[in-house]
Amino acid sequence: MGLSPAFVKRVENLRRELHRLSLRGALICDPENLYYFSGHLIQEGNATALLVIPTDGEAALVVHEDDHQLQSIQDFTGDVLTYRGGVSLHEIDAASTCFIDVYGKSLHPLGIESYSLPFGCGAIVGFVSDEAWRDIQGIMARLRRCKDDDEIALIRHAAAVADTGQEAARELFAEGLSEIVLLSECRSAMEEAAGAPIGFLADVLVGEKTALIGSPLGVAGSYCAEAGDPAIVDLLPRVQGYFADTTRTLWSGTPPAEVHKTVALLQEVKRDLEKLLKPGARAAEIDAAARGRLDREGLFPHHTGHGIGISHFEAPFIRQGSEDVLEAGNVITLEPGLYFDGWGARVEDDYLITPEGFEKLTRSEGG
Amino acid sequence: MGLSPAFVKRVENLRRELHRLSLRGALICDPENLYYFSGHLIQEGNATALLVIPTDGEAALVVHEDDHQLQSIQDFTGDVLTYRGGVSLHEIDAASTCFIDVYGKSLHPLGIESYSLPFGCGAIVGFVSDEAWRDIQGIMARLRRCKDDDEIALIRHAAAVADTGQEAARELFAEGLSEIVLLSECRSAMEEAAGAPIGFLADVLVGEKTALIGSPLGVAGSYCAEAGDPAIVDLLPRVQGYFADTTRTLWSGTPPAEVHKTVALLQEVKRDLEKLLKPGARAAEIDAAARGRLDREGLFPHHTGHGIGISHFEAPFIRQGSEDVLEAGNVITLEPGLYFDGWGARVEDDYLITPEGFEKLTRSEGG
Repeated sequence: MGLSPAFVKRVENLRRELHRLSLRGALICDPENLYYFSGHLIQEGNATALLVIPTDGEAALVVHEDDHQLQSIQDFTGDVLTYRGGVSLHEIDAASTCFIDVYGKSLHPLGIESYSLPFGCGAIVGFVSDEAWRDIQGIMARLRRCKDDDEIALIRHAAAVADTGQEAARELFAEGLSEIVLLSECRSAMEEAAGAPIGFLADVLVGEKTALIGSPLGVAGSYCAEAGDPAIVDLLPRVQGYFADTTRTLWSGTPPAEVHKTVALLQEVKRDLEKLLKPGARAAEIDAAARGRLDREGLFPHHTGHGIGISHFEAPFIRQGSEDVLEAGNVITLEPGLYFDGWGARVEDDYLITPEGFEKLTRSEGG
Repeated sequence: MGLSPAFVKRVENLRRELHRLSLRGALICDPENLYYFSGHLIQEGNATALLVIPTDGEAALVVHEDDHQLQSIQDFTGDVLTYRGGVSLHEIDAASTCFIDVYGKSLHPLGIESYSLPFGCGAIVGFVSDEAWRDIQGIMARLRRCKDDDEIALIRHAAAVADTGQEAARELFAEGLSEIVLLSECRSAMEEAAGAPIGFLADVLVGEKTALIGSPLGVAGSYCAEAGDPAIVDLLPRVQGYFADTTRTLWSGTPPAEVHKTVALLQEVKRDLEKLLKPGARAAEIDAAARGRLDREGLFPHHTGHGIGISHFEAPFIRQGSEDVLEAGNVITLEPGLYFDGWGARVEDDYLITPEGFEKLTRSEGG
């Protein structure tokens, strides 16, 4: 299924888990998992789709009738079932009815993503709590943790797009520029580089708001940079379904000595943390190493890093209490930061864990 | 609850429905409904929240502990319950556990949005199919159909932002400009006008792709306009949680006579359809009037219009088979279009239905 051997391999891995759990199939509605196993990417405003993977038997995509001509559906090598749109308020209802019509209870016990499948679709498993279904969302997250070559190529591309955004920020940021224009122009530069609409999350903050770290409390607004203001530019472009996540701390004009010194320290800490990146490294120890350097300098109230991929925030989590261990194929961020009364600074890059250690995926220079 | 009397009134209206259905409360997790009834807007990347509205008793917001300082939570005048983040893969699981700890079965039978509440949260209603819960998503949609004054003010603002985007498109579109740059620059102009990050959906297509109407098949890419190419610019900014939705058909250089004539016809058809806008008008008859004019000219393969508000696509639906009847307080779009072999055109504006007829909310001129 899908054009690439990568999809065949991913589905094989899932089927192995389904066999192990004595499940007769999986019903996938989480858009991230659906993209991972089928190559069909559902974005905001697109119609609902379901992916059915029988443990033994042909996979099927259940899609809105209007989506049938989409390239990602045409490329899908399993069955394609269509539901009629515009009938119900709830496309997921129409899609799950289509599933029941075709499969009935033949795939019970069924693996489902119990936090993605709506309660109203409970008829799929007869609203029975432990005989007809089992939650496999955690298994999917585990399968997605090590990226295959196709995924690494896509994240590499997203990282290059993020680099373009950071270069635009570095060129543009100056006294008088507003947070919101800085954010918009970074996005435009990345979208032009991608050549297609991108998904986008960002924290772009200037001056005193840099102390707020980012969302939910710190959101870009109309504030215009004054001379010497720092800016935290944290950009998360999603290109062809995969995220990169990079942060630079910039300043307008000549930075105050403390800003300059802090950014240099964060860069040094990040370089030292990189030396710990290799298969077998314990995420909690990397986090502890960051805290050992930063806690005496100021506040460091967030994680040291996290995995990225189809989602912008996934395992391995590099934070206190994490039990994650790095493996080759993980793609992670490192993002040491320091926050003071009235300002803050953060730097962040993306890394592929390799059998030998790591490869840095983001290339842009500086803070 | 909420600072504005509008929220008090909205909750009163919901409680009246809950009484009528003999329900003891409502559990709201759909972000659109949660914003409508509480003023707390959850956007992409923000933490899960739940809103509990007992039929008799104080309302409560269940929010991530990190969100406690958000202005929209501070402004909420009911109870605020917090769940700890970072423990579970699934924030909704932590939030629903918090709900169960506080309320148990005391609000059964409970109104739920069965297509928004995840199956994994079924413990809230004991996985029982018809005694402990009732779906109230349809009721919520009905309550949201007529906009109150606060909502009309927000949609008016979103429409002004959309006008800014269309003015930017009109200024920029010229031979050599790519679809993706046109899309990005429209967004940037709107975001700067809004002074904060906006939500955004769009169909921006140039040349032959205008025949594809828009997503899912037509998506902006790297194609650059050639002399005489038409562009369909369909912009849906979401500002402070409310959508506007406008379309213009532009051209690079001097338009071919057929493009010019078609856009003029669509404007004329739209003006004639406006004359039908008033309370009591049947949506299907407005749609039929559009088809009566357009079917003999070319293809018109989509709806004539739809409601907008917190969502970009809601009742009343102005299309074939619709049973919707316009009411004062509805906010709708009219979007006649014509599509031919190799190109297409569409125009779209937003209208408030008033007791006397309508008010046009979008102001930008032209195709």
